[in-house]
Parts: sequence; C-alpha cells; structure tokens
Amino acid sequence: MCQLLAMNCNVPTDIVFSFTGFAHRGGRTDTHHDGWGIAFFEGSGVRHFVDHQAAIASPIAELIKHYPIKSLNVIAHIRKATQGQVALENCHPFVREMWGRYWVFAHNGDLKGFEPVLDGPYRPVGNTDSERAFCFLLQQLRDRFGDTPPAMPVLRAAIADLVAIIARHGTFNMMLSDGTALFAHCSTKLCYVVRKYPFTAACLADEDLSVDFSQVTTPNDRVAIIVTTPLTTNETWTEFAPGELKVFVDGLPQS
Amino acid sequence: MCQLLAMNCNVPTDIVFSFTGFAHRGGRTDTHHDGWGIAFFEGSGVRHFVDHQAAIASPIAELIKHYPIKSLNVIAHIRKATQGQVALENCHPFVREMWGRYWVFAHNGDLKGFEPVLDGPYRPVGNTDSERAFCFLLQQLRDRFGDTPPAMPVLRAAIADLVAIIARHGTFNMMLSDGTALFAHCSTKLCYVVRKYPFTAACLADEDLSVDFSQVTTPNDRVAIIVTTPLTTNETWTEFAPGELKVFVDGLPQS
Repeated sequence: MCQLLAMNCNVPTDIVFSFTGFAHRGGRTDTHHDGWGIAFFEGSGVRHFVDHQAAIASPIAELIKHYPIKSLNVIAHIRKATQGQVALENCHPFVREMWGRYWVFAHNGDLKGFEPVLDGPYRPVGNTDSERAFCFLLQQLRDRFGDTPPAMPVLRAAIADLVAIIARHGTFNMMLSDGTALFAHCSTKLCYVVRKYPFTAACLADEDLSVDFSQVTTPNDRVAIIVTTPLTTNETWTEFAPGELKVFVDGLPQS
Repeated sequence: MCQLLAMNCNVPTDIVFSFTGFAHRGGRTDTHHDGWGIAFFEGSGVRHFVDHQAAIASPIAELIKHYPIKSLNVIAHIRKATQGQVALENCHPFVREMWGRYWVFAHNGDLKGFEPVLDGPYRPVGNTDSERAFCFLLQQLRDRFGDTPPAMPVLRAAIADLVAIIARHGTFNMMLSDGTALFAHCSTKLCYVVRKYPFTAACLADEDLSVDFSQVTTPNDRVAIIVTTPLTTNETWTEFAPGELKVFVDGLPQS
C-alpha cells in the first residue's frame, strides 16, 4: 500500500518538516520504494515533482527537503506498486485541468475490476487503477456540472457520491485538491492534525528531528496535515472513520 | 521576448550542457528574468519544472544543471513577460493531456487580439496569450479528430494549418510535443542543429564551457537541438524560414 500526505493552510506554509519524515517512508522506515511525487499549489499554478526512484534516493526529494516552497495546498504520495509497472507516468499525484483550474489527485489502495467507460476528455496516460479513478471523477463532475463549477456544498456532495461509487471496487484512500480546498476520503486509514495557536514543538516519528512551530508562525496561522499514519509522536492525531470524506479549507475541516 | 529551447533525440539523452548555456540567458547574459520552465518526457510520463524566479537564481534550475535526466523530448522556456503577470501559472511550458498522452507547449512572441472562443475541455489557468493559444490548438485538434489521434502526416498538416491561423495575430514561435515528435514553428526566430556521428566538441556561447560529445555518445546517437538563437559558437546552426513548421522525430527534421 502507498502512503499519502497532504497539507491545507490559511497562509502559505512550507511542508519541509512534514515531508522530511514522510520521505523516509519511501525506502527507509517503510518499504514504499516504487516512486513518489508531490504537488504544490502556488496561486492557481502548480509545481509538480514526480520520480520513479525511491524518495530516500531521489535528488529531487532532497531538493524539496531543503527548499521551502510555500503553499496553501500540497499533496504528496509514496508509491508501492500494486497495479501498473514502476514508471514515471504511474507516479502520483496526477494533474489535470478542469474549469480553468488544476486538479491534483493521489490514491492509496487497490481497486478491483474498476473499468469505467472513459469517453470524455480525460484519459489515463499510464496504466494504474488510480489514474483511471481520477479520470472517472473528473469526467463525472464535468458531465454533471458542464463548464461551470458549482458552489462548494454541491461540489462536495457530488464528490462524496462519486468516491463512494469508486470505493465499492476496493480500498480508496484519496486526496484531491483544486487549489482552493482539499478533499480527503478514507476507506481504511487516514488521520489529521490541525496545528494552530498556541503552537508547540513537534517530534517526527520517522527521524530524530523536532521543530518548535511557535518560532516560525504567527498566532493567526492554521495548518491541517492529513496523512496515512501519524507523522509525529507528541501531537494528537484524529482518525477518519471508514467511508468518511472530509473537506479542508483554510486549515480547518469543514463541518 | 522569451527564449525557447527544445531537444528531440533517438536515444534518451540529457540536456545538461545545452540547458546550462540556455539558463544563463535567464538573468545573466540576457534579460529574461520573469520565470522559466522545462518539461522532460520520460516514456509517456512528464517531469515538469516551473519557477517564477529568474533561471539564474532558481534552486530548481541549479538541480537541472547537475541532474542528468535522460529524455527523448524536452521543451524549455525562459520568460520575459509581455502579457500576464509574473506568476507560476503563467510560466511555460504548459502541460495538458489529450488522447491519453501529455502535450507540452511553449511560446515566444506576443499575440494581439487573440481571443478565441474556448468552449471545449481545455481552459487557461493563467492569463497569457500563450496558454490561450495552446488551449485553442488542443480544442481544434480534438474537434477535428475526436477521440482518436490521426496519422502523423494528417496531424502535421492540421497543426501547420492551426499555427498559421494563430500567427495572424502576431509573433508565434512555438514548440509542441506529445512525447513522440517535436513540432517547432517559427514566426521570426528559430534555428536548429543535429548532432550525430562523427561527434565533435561544442563550446557554449553563454558560458565558458565546452563538451566533447564523442566521449559521451555512441555512433548511432542523434540529437536535434532547436533554440531561439544559437547556443554554441563552433557548430553550424540552420535557421528556420519565417512561417515554417518543422517536425522532428528520432533526432531528425522530417521532410
């Protein structure tokens, strides 16, 4: 199974600390060595890095760990191949444009017999169940709403409906963002923490590293981190319920 | 005006040498400091790097100069903003998926009054004339050929037709690739060189650096480099004619 990491904030924040721990799961503290990727929204633009090398051995992962790219929405993924060979086109996250916005998607799990009819403009380039699911999601959203994105409550309900359809085929933990919100769906395993004032120190579970967030934040900052398994040993992580879709905006899960 | 660089080869080749000279035009030997970007095809996957910092100051450009990513098709761009502010979403190259392939596009020039009706699935995320032209091209290709890509001669004729329509609005030097071929159109300024056996040494025009290609190639290798102005001082560069579209496959311009 793969591992997922996402961040959603109310002010542009770098993910260096969390990514450093996460990247160690790509070949060191865990066995996810079939590629990795990360996408950062910056305004409406996206920086997208993928590599078929293990995150622990990748010069690009090394760059990300030392280059504080500030972003409101980030999605990262470390791959353990279940379907599709180890190749760049099969590395998550995947990016497509719809409604004049980029959409970023990553998936952890394994879908069986998921072969939707893809007759719209979104086609997989690689051969993973995950990219098929992403193309299906976008095709369905475009079929339902045409050329104009609906209001958030309507969009959220549609995505909840669609991920439930996909999840009938197997495990479908997934992250999706259009740069304004982060949608996270849990089939089996996902948890989150909201870091906000008063900030404290956090210690990584995967590396002997801690950071005192009170030194690098303002009282108004709010950062939600969503991940497959907790990244730190001294913060309280909230588990998702199986089948739950949460939407994060400005660093907070929406009720 | 911006600067363009592309590479098309018959064996996966790194672009470190040519990119090193090219990147110096982003803020050192020339004044193109409003961002830059590069996209590498690797199989059917794409590595896409964009940055709104000048190439000369960018840590990501530094990585590319030292990390030999091997690719059959590469497109790079250094931006001097004419339309659209300096922002990540306005950095070339742009990437979209069509027909289950990624398409990569970069443009040098300035289009006046080019406001095509974009009612298909490809919409600009940023606000440049260039991204509008790219979306128009893809929309028109999809309108003409539906869900199935045509044979190369038909595709080439369609692209030649469409770039001529766009070029009526101004300068439209452009590079386009779907990972199998590289399409290069010249309005005003573009030249190319084909490096092949017997390989010799080449000296960069923008930096005191030379490389002896005979040391790093086999007799079967063939590499076409297409660029706004010649990158080296001791190779014979062939200029495009104004209005000319060339298609490069396996390191050779197709007749």
